[in-house]
Amino acid sequence: MRNRLLLRLLAIALIGIPLLSAAAEPISEKPNFIIVFADDLGYGDLGCFGHPTIRTPHLDQMATEGMKLTSFYVAAPVCTPSRAGLLTGRLPVRSGMSGGGDKRVLYPGDEGGLPPEEITIAELLQDAGYATACIGKWHLGDKPEYMPNSQGFDYFFGLPYSNDMNIEEGHPRHASSMDPDADFHWWDVPLMRNGEIIERPADQNTLTRRYAQESVSFIKEHQDQPFFIYLAQTMPHVPLFASDDFRNESSRGRYGDVVEEIDWCVGEIIRTLRETGLAENTLVVFTSDNGPWLRKKFAGGSAGLLRDGKGSTWEGGQREPTIAWWPGRVPAGTVNSGIASTMDLFTTAVHLAGGKVPQDRVIDGMNLSELLFHDKAGPRNLFFYYRGDQLCAIRKGPWKAHFNTWDGYSKVPPESHNPPLLYNLDQDPSEQHDIAADHPDVVKDLIQEAKGHLEAVTPGEPQYYELSPSWQEADFGLPSGAREVPKRNLQG
Amino acid sequence: MRNRLLLRLLAIALIGIPLLSAAAEPISEKPNFIIVFADDLGYGDLGCFGHPTIRTPHLDQMATEGMKLTSFYVAAPVCTPSRAGLLTGRLPVRSGMSGGGDKRVLYPGDEGGLPPEEITIAELLQDAGYATACIGKWHLGDKPEYMPNSQGFDYFFGLPYSNDMNIEEGHPRHASSMDPDADFHWWDVPLMRNGEIIERPADQNTLTRRYAQESVSFIKEHQDQPFFIYLAQTMPHVPLFASDDFRNESSRGRYGDVVEEIDWCVGEIIRTLRETGLAENTLVVFTSDNGPWLRKKFAGGSAGLLRDGKGSTWEGGQREPTIAWWPGRVPAGTVNSGIASTMDLFTTAVHLAGGKVPQDRVIDGMNLSELLFHDKAGPRNLFFYYRGDQLCAIRKGPWKAHFNTWDGYSKVPPESHNPPLLYNLDQDPSEQHDIAADHPDVVKDLIQEAKGHLEAVTPGEPQYYELSPSWQEADFGLPSGAREVPKRNLQG
Repeated sequence: MRNRLLLRLLAIALIGIPLLSAAAEPISEKPNFIIVFADDLGYGDLGCFGHPTIRTPHLDQMATEGMKLTSFYVAAPVCTPSRAGLLTGRLPVRSGMSGGGDKRVLYPGDEGGLPPEEITIAELLQDAGYATACIGKWHLGDKPEYMPNSQGFDYFFGLPYSNDMNIEEGHPRHASSMDPDADFHWWDVPLMRNGEIIERPADQNTLTRRYAQESVSFIKEHQDQPFFIYLAQTMPHVPLFASDDFRNESSRGRYGDVVEEIDWCVGEIIRTLRETGLAENTLVVFTSDNGPWLRKKFAGGSAGLLRDGKGSTWEGGQREPTIAWWPGRVPAGTVNSGIASTMDLFTTAVHLAGGKVPQDRVIDGMNLSELLFHDKAGPRNLFFYYRGDQLCAIRKGPWKAHFNTWDGYSKVPPESHNPPLLYNLDQDPSEQHDIAADHPDVVKDLIQEAKGHLEAVTPGEPQYYELSPSWQEADFGLPSGAREVPKRNLQG
Repeated sequence: MRNRLLLRLLAIALIGIPLLSAAAEPISEKPNFIIVFADDLGYGDLGCFGHPTIRTPHLDQMATEGMKLTSFYVAAPVCTPSRAGLLTGRLPVRSGMSGGGDKRVLYPGDEGGLPPEEITIAELLQDAGYATACIGKWHLGDKPEYMPNSQGFDYFFGLPYSNDMNIEEGHPRHASSMDPDADFHWWDVPLMRNGEIIERPADQNTLTRRYAQESVSFIKEHQDQPFFIYLAQTMPHVPLFASDDFRNESSRGRYGDVVEEIDWCVGEIIRTLRETGLAENTLVVFTSDNGPWLRKKFAGGSAGLLRDGKGSTWEGGQREPTIAWWPGRVPAGTVNSGIASTMDLFTTAVHLAGGKVPQDRVIDGMNLSELLFHDKAGPRNLFFYYRGDQLCAIRKGPWKAHFNTWDGYSKVPPESHNPPLLYNLDQDPSEQHDIAADHPDVVKDLIQEAKGHLEAVTPGEPQYYELSPSWQEADFGLPSGAREVPKRNLQG
């Protein structure tokens, strides 16, 4: 420990000679990890991903000094299962956290949550000697046994679920609940520190600022120990709140205010890492839990050139604007379009920490070290897009086949496709030109991959589920019994 | 001249001390200008504007060292009038170069062209002592009196018109003329040096490379004289051709190959400017003539988060991915969303060269110096969107009113809107949410602005025009006589 401290002090002393610190081997026997997980941020909502008016200088700078990942996916197109996928390195269907039917996320008071027998990235890093913090939104079950302190996090500061929850349906305030000028008192969401409610309702105006402060404090307090911070922003999920310094500052409106405050928050973290001499030993990854909530209009984001948004298995629902930063390790100014996923962050972090991923269960994550540190294509060639417990689409290399589509924006009825729709995502990232008819062999291959996957998947006991036979599975010969799992938990 | 050379040699000697050269006042009594004008490139087609698979490291680096302009417009959504607007600093309707009806661009053998009485940026810079070169596609009339050497350019190397021209409609080769694996011999377009045809058909495979070589040579040969290069790329206009080094290299397909070769070309120019010590005295602006040709599917580009593309007055037709670069003058790493236009480049360049814009005619261009060099909002608050000689839309600050819309992609019939559609482009750059009903005062104000503009505009004698009463003007009280101009020239 003393040696680490001395080396860091030396690094601070040498700060005027940047070439040396960039060229030197990093102090990386146990690097720190920070995952900044925005909420409902769209692929097109950052300057470096092409937004014309939202100003994100800190994230742009992070991209200039690091890597933009342009085919980076989350495990599901909505909150709860996406978070479960990141923290466990597994497809949410395996842990029973996928949701299903009309029940797609957990609600306050639900009986279920992330099963204690699941092994989180925080638990593995904790075992490896890391200090671990969950700062921000949890949304993986609000009973004590499901909460962060029971899932490998030494420290928790944040909300147990989404910031729009705890207003009953039909309440007169509900209709306007997304009004960006609304009073935060309309939402009765609690702010917690570890197991204690410290504020209710949480003052949402200052949440992003306080998350930044908490993150900075945690970094400063753990300079002599490797640490992991899972910073799950509450914003830009509606309702949108920003602190005084950012409110009404963005020409993009309240949504822009909120994203610009998140950008500031990331800047504070990067600045702290530099000041503490930890920059060369810390991997920071910025991404989001799912695509933009398009139905919220001005209060929702933009998927840029991608189709659709939150809730959909079109690209806009699950491909996120992602930046990886680690001076001296992640090559500066690179753009990598290799397929990667939040689940891979699990495996990558465990590997870098010198640990081993669990051997007693299927782990979907893959080690991204070659991709991140050598700008290679990476190990992942397949990605599976689930809506709830339904496999809707599959990507293999540039090819994506849709068996079921469901428009996340307009709530039009879902459609099954047999044969599936086929797109070449490298050439047609906007999924505009179905070319299934031109590539029967590719279609056949992707159907086989999907069948093989479904036959091999063992769904976990559903933690929340509401049976709704409102749409059909694609008829591509999957073993239908595999999806007929009992419901365990219904709201209220 | 000798002093300039000495200063440049000194700058080269000091190249190891970048801080000094960045901080020093540039040698800018008469800076050089290079405008790189891509053809049919979409807003979303560069890495730094959010494309996931097209690799543009040189343009990304140019943006990191300079400024991204995110609300930068061309004067028209198709080739010929867009080029006329850039070169004259005037709305194309004023010079008779707007086209109209079904005739929207010039064709080989047309009688008309950019009128000699128009004053081009090249003529003004030539008068101010500049060496001037037009390298690339002209498309402003192919009779000698309209060609570059008659319009202020000392030197011309390129094509007189688009690379898909000179195949007659109905010819059996025409249907597949956009096949990216087609032989270039299918297009009979000539390559010219000054007034001479030096190759016919032009070998399109090597055009981008030869444009780069010509530009580099022109820079090297004019180190002791201020120069202006108008580099109007032939690509990525279909048919798409790339040289051996780039063909089949991009995961985006042939369109990506071609954009990546343009990126390389820009890199060659920047490298040459650094090597010759001219970087600190040269303003380089990269943009495109209009949005992506969406109907060409894989052979067309992407407008990113903007709506529609080439041919349309939705944003995707006229807002272009624009980068300004001038080390020491344009602040590095900035993103500016101020409204600006190619016509403003005319005025800005003339101002920086110590000249004066013509006083005997209306010039629509404005001086962007404050925007470019101090990252300010800039002087422009209004922009007028024309399709042919029809005013279709107007932008004022963040607001855009559409009086007529015409989908550039699907060729659906045009629609008139009374009251106009209204969008807030800062908050809704994708033009998804018409909010005219919520802002009657804004609508009224924009109608007044449009009326005032139309009453004041004197259309020039049409240089090419085909009367086609296929759609109606918006009924917002414009003096209809203003649009009833005689046709002069129909295609042979």
